[in-house]
Amino acid sequence: MIHPDMATMLAYIATDARLPQALLQRCLKEAVEISFNRISVDGDTSTNDACVLMASGASGVDIDDSSLPTFRAALFEVATWLARAVVRDGEGATKFVTIDVEGGRDEAECRQVAMAIARSPLVKTALFASDPNWGRILAAVGYAGLEQLDLSTVNMYLGDVCIVSKGGRAPQYTEAQGQQAMDGEEITIRVELGRGEAVTRVWTCDLSYDYVRINAEYRS
Amino acid sequence: MIHPDMATMLAYIATDARLPQALLQRCLKEAVEISFNRISVDGDTSTNDACVLMASGASGVDIDDSSLPTFRAALFEVATWLARAVVRDGEGATKFVTIDVEGGRDEAECRQVAMAIARSPLVKTALFASDPNWGRILAAVGYAGLEQLDLSTVNMYLGDVCIVSKGGRAPQYTEAQGQQAMDGEEITIRVELGRGEAVTRVWTCDLSYDYVRINAEYRS
Repeated sequence: MIHPDMATMLAYIATDARLPQALLQRCLKEAVEISFNRISVDGDTSTNDACVLMASGASGVDIDDSSLPTFRAALFEVATWLARAVVRDGEGATKFVTIDVEGGRDEAECRQVAMAIARSPLVKTALFASDPNWGRILAAVGYAGLEQLDLSTVNMYLGDVCIVSKGGRAPQYTEAQGQQAMDGEEITIRVELGRGEAVTRVWTCDLSYDYVRINAEYRS
Repeated sequence: MIHPDMATMLAYIATDARLPQALLQRCLKEAVEISFNRISVDGDTSTNDACVLMASGASGVDIDDSSLPTFRAALFEVATWLARAVVRDGEGATKFVTIDVEGGRDEAECRQVAMAIARSPLVKTALFASDPNWGRILAAVGYAGLEQLDLSTVNMYLGDVCIVSKGGRAPQYTEAQGQQAMDGEEITIRVELGRGEAVTRVWTCDLSYDYVRINAEYRS
């Protein structure tokens, strides 16, 4: 039960740095946006979640303009690590999947495509089966709802293997290459939309028998 | 792989009535809107589907203003029957689920709520387990994205059993009643939003082990 806006999940992050509350809040919002709001286990958002960032100031170190970039980088690293851990811990997950979408007109449309892939039960069952089913991924790109999407500018990669070139099966692609890219527990799907400069990254997992078992056996 | 806008599915409907092409097309659009575009098996829309309506005119019977309502009713019945058959035939489906959403401001928001419920893997695994998990359904209503949704006007029914009243567990509701409503193969979920007069109806199925098996075993 994990999807952007988090889900029945309580995250606490603490620092001993000293920051004003308003700045702390701004940093937290930025951090959540690129971490907890970039994961999906099953597309189900719940009603009870929170991410809390606390600064005790115990170190006596003030965060000022010169140290803020370092603080933000550290915070983003912690938040991203935690968010990825949530995906690894997804119900029945056997694969950890990074989805990179590049070349969009803006970040929102990159995210729309990435989330369509991340939510697709057909993509997720293919991931569970280690099946390099590029047709299912391309179908999700197609139905993601982008305006005037020209498939002839779309390329797709599984790991380093180019599987789709200009909207069709890449000419040099072999099934063996795709299989090798899918066999590991960590899989990267990269989509190049070829219509802009925006990028995004999203993390998800596969859909396995155990997802069904865990969520069917759990009784309210 | 079935969701509104159909999905790798070819539907053919034929009549021996005589109608002009433009009228036939209008009737078909109306029919598809309340049938094939009101079902979801797994939320995955595919790239290859069509619904074709043919009129041979062989009966020699012209459809005019007086007979059009009868023709439309018959067409809607056939289209709805076919759409429901698609759901019954969904990969691994063990339950046939009707979702009625009433009391919305317009049909679009009723559909938004109904589709959020129909797509939720947590609702669907609970359906598979015959678990009257009203919390999961209510969570889907909550995250469907309606503006200014006031949960205190929301009621919910499983079959004839009121499970949620004014946004909380119905006071008279017992687990045994909910269990009875979930035990059959045909389940109706009714949501009253209490903020308007619009209604919609959507059909879906559960998410079972066999959904994962069928879609994981199938290789491209």
